[in-house]
Amino acid sequence: MVLFRDNLGSVLRAERTRQQMTLRQLSGEARVSLGYISEIERGHKEASSELLAALCGALDLRLSEVLREVSDSVAVEEQRLAGEVTSIAPVPSGVVASAA
Amino acid sequence: MVLFRDNLGSVLRAERTRQQMTLRQLSGEARVSLGYISEIERGHKEASSELLAALCGALDLRLSEVLREVSDSVAVEEQRLAGEVTSIAPVPSGVVASAA
Repeated sequence: MVLFRDNLGSVLRAERTRQQMTLRQLSGEARVSLGYISEIERGHKEASSELLAALCGALDLRLSEVLREVSDSVAVEEQRLAGEVTSIAPVPSGVVASAA
Repeated sequence: MVLFRDNLGSVLRAERTRQQMTLRQLSGEARVSLGYISEIERGHKEASSELLAALCGALDLRLSEVLREVSDSVAVEEQRLAGEVTSIAPVPSGVVASAA
């Protein structure tokens, strides 16, 4: 199952590291505990909407931008999962027979 | 402040009504209590990632599609808020002087 919080966490961590910001700096800027941000980045905890807004503000990003990135990340995971389902499906016997 | 849950709720409600599905039908399909879905649609409660996945599944939508719609909705609200901030900003005195 593709989960919002996993992809949100990855996007937030990628943005923070891209900006060369430490967890401690982001924690101070957003006024959110360091441990909680770390849990969110690893997809272990859900971020409330207020917390998400605070993190976006501290990262100087619009919420819409972050959600667009999360949507793109989720789409990639959805396609990967769809591909796996296809690849593990048994080959129809008719196909094997006609190839022989 | 633009909140994720407000926009998510609006998007989910719009999708459900577009599909002419009642809260009761969605509740049965997603196996989530009717009252809880109603709270989420009104932006009163945060949806966990698992719940969001269940609602998307019941609405036959990909999570990435829903997030894209929420991102678009948030962007509109951000632009509206930015416009309000601009419109209530005091006119610089120099502008008035040069226009006189």
